[in-house]
Amino acid sequence: MHVAIVLYPGFTSLDVIGPYEVLGRLPDTEVVFVAEQPGLVRNDLRSLSINVVAGLADVPEPDVVLIGGGPGQADQMADGNLHEWLRTVDRTAAWTASACTGSLILAAAGVLNGRRATTHWAALGNLAEFGVTPANERVVIDGHYATAAGVSAGIDMALTLAGFLAGDDMAQAVQLIIEYAPEPPYHAGSLDVAPAKAVEIAKAKLSGRLS
Amino acid sequence: MHVAIVLYPGFTSLDVIGPYEVLGRLPDTEVVFVAEQPGLVRNDLRSLSINVVAGLADVPEPDVVLIGGGPGQADQMADGNLHEWLRTVDRTAAWTASACTGSLILAAAGVLNGRRATTHWAALGNLAEFGVTPANERVVIDGHYATAAGVSAGIDMALTLAGFLAGDDMAQAVQLIIEYAPEPPYHAGSLDVAPAKAVEIAKAKLSGRLS
Repeated sequence: MHVAIVLYPGFTSLDVIGPYEVLGRLPDTEVVFVAEQPGLVRNDLRSLSINVVAGLADVPEPDVVLIGGGPGQADQMADGNLHEWLRTVDRTAAWTASACTGSLILAAAGVLNGRRATTHWAALGNLAEFGVTPANERVVIDGHYATAAGVSAGIDMALTLAGFLAGDDMAQAVQLIIEYAPEPPYHAGSLDVAPAKAVEIAKAKLSGRLS
Repeated sequence: MHVAIVLYPGFTSLDVIGPYEVLGRLPDTEVVFVAEQPGLVRNDLRSLSINVVAGLADVPEPDVVLIGGGPGQADQMADGNLHEWLRTVDRTAAWTASACTGSLILAAAGVLNGRRATTHWAALGNLAEFGVTPANERVVIDGHYATAAGVSAGIDMALTLAGFLAGDDMAQAVQLIIEYAPEPPYHAGSLDVAPAKAVEIAKAKLSGRLS
């Protein structure tokens, strides 16, 4: 199985590394990071650079394609090589997946038209602009599309995909290997439970970073 | 605040990227990835390379030092430059932290002597060899040491540290930004809840990978 994970400048690292850590552990699976401009691709926080060895043309027919989000998503919304590639690989992929605002890029490319999908809570309203029905859920499966809510939700999405791709036993084994039995020290991970002060700080920090 | 995250060949990416995504979002915080051999450092799954720009000597006095685990941990257990650096920075760091089997490296370097600590479930017994009391907990705080259980536990550890470093409001805001309201599709993330078949597969996959 070939999994392609798309990177672009200003990506949020956990969006892609969470799913990578799950999908990369499935049997007979090869993951390749791919970018429109291969080479070192720098993240949103600017302190992490991943070396991307594959360009879009090098990965013509992945079984799974995954795109994450991050502030750099805003620069990937115009039609062009990436959108064309996404539309093409989507036709043959078993799964087209996103974490966080990666779904906005899929939506802008037109592949989520008429589908239900999710994204980061701060961007949920933006999906409707592209003919996509926003779903305030952590993981949304609609047809062969798997979309995840913000950042860390990619782990839950990838474990769900792992079950479809390799069976429940293997998905559970991967969950055990990455010891994913979360115990967040706070109860603040979604908009409906976070304390008002945390919401205020989070909104200020995200201000102007979403398209 | 200066945070140093140590990489070495064969690291597990989520061990470090989970905490990075949390700590890197704290105010006035600069994160630097550091390695004994800077340049491209490749992970355990061999499909991800991070470009490390700093050598150990370039980061003499971080406020927080964090080391993750992975199969490559086995090659970092002998005394040498990394252990010497860990002992040195530990003297002045506000926090010395680990995720997964990174705590075995801290233990081998001697800095966890007499402390309680945790690590990946498959390696918990190994801590005692180094005069460390193994604690079967997701996050262990002892003095200025913060250790996390396997892989994904680093996120919980980092949010705990974020509270100490920047206050509860900020830690909760970061939790909301990374939308960390986990909904694992299975209940298999720890040894005491995982189904027998998942445990069997996980142990087979991990076999020979821990020292």
